[in-house]
Amino acid sequence: MDKLKRSQRMVLLTKELTENPGKIFSLNYFCERYQSAKSSISEDLNIIRDIFSESDEGHLKTISGVTGGVVFYPYLGDRAEKSFLKELAKDLSKGDRILPGGYLYMTDLIYSPDILRKLAKIFAKKFRETKPDYIVTIETKGIPLALMTAETFGVPLVIIRDSSRVTEGSAVNINYVSGSNHTISTMSLAKRTLPENSKVIVIDDFMKAGGTAKGMIDLLGEFNAEILGMGILITTAEPENKLVKEYLSLLSLETLNSETREVQIAVKE
Amino acid sequence: MDKLKRSQRMVLLTKELTENPGKIFSLNYFCERYQSAKSSISEDLNIIRDIFSESDEGHLKTISGVTGGVVFYPYLGDRAEKSFLKELAKDLSKGDRILPGGYLYMTDLIYSPDILRKLAKIFAKKFRETKPDYIVTIETKGIPLALMTAETFGVPLVIIRDSSRVTEGSAVNINYVSGSNHTISTMSLAKRTLPENSKVIVIDDFMKAGGTAKGMIDLLGEFNAEILGMGILITTAEPENKLVKEYLSLLSLETLNSETREVQIAVKE
Repeated sequence: MDKLKRSQRMVLLTKELTENPGKIFSLNYFCERYQSAKSSISEDLNIIRDIFSESDEGHLKTISGVTGGVVFYPYLGDRAEKSFLKELAKDLSKGDRILPGGYLYMTDLIYSPDILRKLAKIFAKKFRETKPDYIVTIETKGIPLALMTAETFGVPLVIIRDSSRVTEGSAVNINYVSGSNHTISTMSLAKRTLPENSKVIVIDDFMKAGGTAKGMIDLLGEFNAEILGMGILITTAEPENKLVKEYLSLLSLETLNSETREVQIAVKE
Repeated sequence: MDKLKRSQRMVLLTKELTENPGKIFSLNYFCERYQSAKSSISEDLNIIRDIFSESDEGHLKTISGVTGGVVFYPYLGDRAEKSFLKELAKDLSKGDRILPGGYLYMTDLIYSPDILRKLAKIFAKKFRETKPDYIVTIETKGIPLALMTAETFGVPLVIIRDSSRVTEGSAVNINYVSGSNHTISTMSLAKRTLPENSKVIVIDDFMKAGGTAKGMIDLLGEFNAEILGMGILITTAEPENKLVKEYLSLLSLETLNSETREVQIAVKE
């Protein structure tokens, strides 16, 4: 690559950092890639760090040590987070989202990349002090949210399946009781997908009684995984006592009345 | 936001464009957001366009018309694409990936955000002339790849399920014959998730005989969807005649010998 002007370097640096959240870049890497002196790259990164911080776009963290480097964690600023969650709650509270059986239709929202990216940044901020090796979810509807969260942390995704698959090799299976309707289901995690003693964050889209979440914790226990946090998009207000105690949810489903077609969703504080 | 210097504006503009591929931004939006004159923003965008183009990072397309605006499509340059796919093929060709039954373990790679992002950019480039409304896949293993591809196009993801779910409302189900082992399975797509007459690109991780792909085409036909393209990460060399004719695959599984533990994967031209 030809020698670049500062403005050009800023563009390429910003793009590379934005596309690779959670990834540690050494100064040397940037120096070689952009044919620039360490002092110039440092200055560029300082500008990026300051404007990201001022505009609440994320944290460009300096890694000290022999090589030195930076890693970018994208955030959603507090105000942006509040207004976004409020909008999302409003959209989810539309009466025509009520499905037969008293379920809430939310597939359109939780499969939309722009919404998922914002949610992932919120989880990244809430769990900013943790250093997970993996983000774990259970198929199917939580996968998009979990993948985006994995990307903001710069770590791989692990998907618990509802039965073991020939394409993933030997697996640990457990049976669990779904808290809301007391049916017994199976969940399965291929041995090869999660090394023993990994640090993980569990992400899912919905929790009612917490039976599935409890099952995931039990299954992860079989892998001696350390659970650093559990992030759920929506939990129901009832039952108040969930089967799991430690979780963080963004929205609360307060009311869903199929007859009056009323839905109430609140943003959790 | 206070008045920004050019270098600061370049950082924020680049971040916003990079994080929202496929999204159309009007010049006015940027002018208001960054408190800057249209001429300054235009100049910034020209710098960004040129350096993205020179360094093969993507295409910043100008939208003409009353309002005027830009939209960013990230690409992987030809050289970067070739070396990345070669590395991926090499990694997938490791003998210890062979599972009992002659299956290839690839979960670790297709759930890794950094690999997925590159693959998504490759698909975005191959299908650059198309304007899909949705990216469609079938659960489970193709979901991460399909979601990342959806993000590069700035459109929502649609997931075909293996049975209909109470949480998604009424659905169209079809039975299909899996080409490789002639078993009959079901796939299901909730009516609400895909409007009639949508334009879609189908993305999946693996294709052998093409039974599943054929099933997806049939099911999408029930929604009068127009299929603009089908992108598959890996297809098997055998059988040569797949049940679907029009598809684009990135890698070809040439050999998988469980006894000699040999795997050969080639990059498709």
